[in-house]
This record gives sequence, C-alpha cells and structure tokens, in this order.
Amino acid sequence: MPTDDTGHPALGLNDVVHQKTRLALLTVLDEAGRADFPYLKRLLGLTDGNLGRPLDILAAQGIVEITKGYEGRRPRTWAAITPKGEQALADEMSNLASLLTRFQATSDRKRDERPA
Amino acid sequence: MPTDDTGHPALGLNDVVHQKTRLALLTVLDEAGRADFPYLKRLLGLTDGNLGRPLDILAAQGIVEITKGYEGRRPRTWAAITPKGEQALADEMSNLASLLTRFQATSDRKRDERPA
Repeated sequence: MPTDDTGHPALGLNDVVHQKTRLALLTVLDEAGRADFPYLKRLLGLTDGNLGRPLDILAAQGIVEITKGYEGRRPRTWAAITPKGEQALADEMSNLASLLTRFQATSDRKRDERPA
Repeated sequence: MPTDDTGHPALGLNDVVHQKTRLALLTVLDEAGRADFPYLKRLLGLTDGNLGRPLDILAAQGIVEITKGYEGRRPRTWAAITPKGEQALADEMSNLASLLTRFQATSDRKRDERPA
C-alpha cells in the first residue's frame, strides 16, 4: 500500500526495509538471488560488523535467509531474499515511487510559480 | 550524484536525509515551505519527542531552520527547509529514482525468465 491513513507516502515506509544499509542489501539480494558475505561486503563497502547486524535484523523478520555451508573445506555463509522479503521490497519501492511523484509535482509547481 | 564509486545507487543515499522521519519532514517542508510544530505532528503522526529529535539533527546540518516567535501571545515554533536542504532532498530523490529504475529492470528480467 503506497500511503497510510494520513495520505503522506513517506509515512507508509517500513523502517525495517527503508534503513539505508538494509535497503542496499535487499536490492543487491533481489538482483543476485543469493550472495555470500565476502561479495556483499565488497560490493557495499561494509565490514563484518556492519554487515552482520543489518542481516540479523532482516533474518529475524523473515526477509532474508542465512545459510551456512562449505565450499570444499572452506566455511561459507550465504544470504538470500525470501518471498516475504521480495514483497516487502516491492512495497518499499511502491512507496518510494509515490514519494518521487509527489516531490516532482512540488518541483514543477515551484518552477511554474517562480518569476520569469 | 546518483551513485557512489561502487556504482550501486543505494550507497549514494545520505542517511541524514534518508532516515524515515527526517525524509517525511523534509518532503512536507518542501511542499509547505514552512510549517509549525502542531501541523507537522498532526500530519506525520508524531509526538513532541519524536518530532524534536529529527528536526534538531536536520537543523544541526543546516538542512532546516527553526524559528521561534509569537502569534498573538501564544508562542509558536516553525520549521523551514533551507536551500541546502532543498539540494540534499533533490540528491536523495535522484538516488531513489536510480534505485527504482534498477529495481524495475530486475523485476522485468525476472518476469522474462519465469517459465511461461
């Protein structure tokens, strides 16, 4: 749903998904399907510490799924977006699209009102 | 600038402006020019506490300007977006537009790959 009861699209944003690093992670996982931790850290310029916490929050909400395994003898950890996560990201993007439309309308109005 | 060096638009987001309540406040102030505290609280469903802190953060960055005055004998406080704030909001919106374009391209690709 792109808006909440007050009608302002910014209020419909879900902070679990909207927060900057979590939004970055979700968009990357949406593109990649699943990704291992070194890839995510490299792509998003994160350390172990600031990758782990946002992923934990997303996993606790069922928005991503963390899988541990081995590649040969090397332990690896993957993150993947879940169907619930895809829906949450789609809702966020729908809200952002409403916000952008509203911002653009305001910009157009201001331009029209400016003295020539 | 819509992207950072790694090329992912989510990384170009500026958290000062991106954070949900601050983004809501800035879009409202961009529309209204300036607004008093009761109006902002009502529109965004905020209390004194959760309106004050985000406004303080935005004011400390020169993104909004807080003015205290009187209407008759009643003290009032207004918030207004500054030119620096308008630029920061325009940058955020440009980043969000890039993110949306990328998300839409991924969605289209996934749809095309789905078995008929």
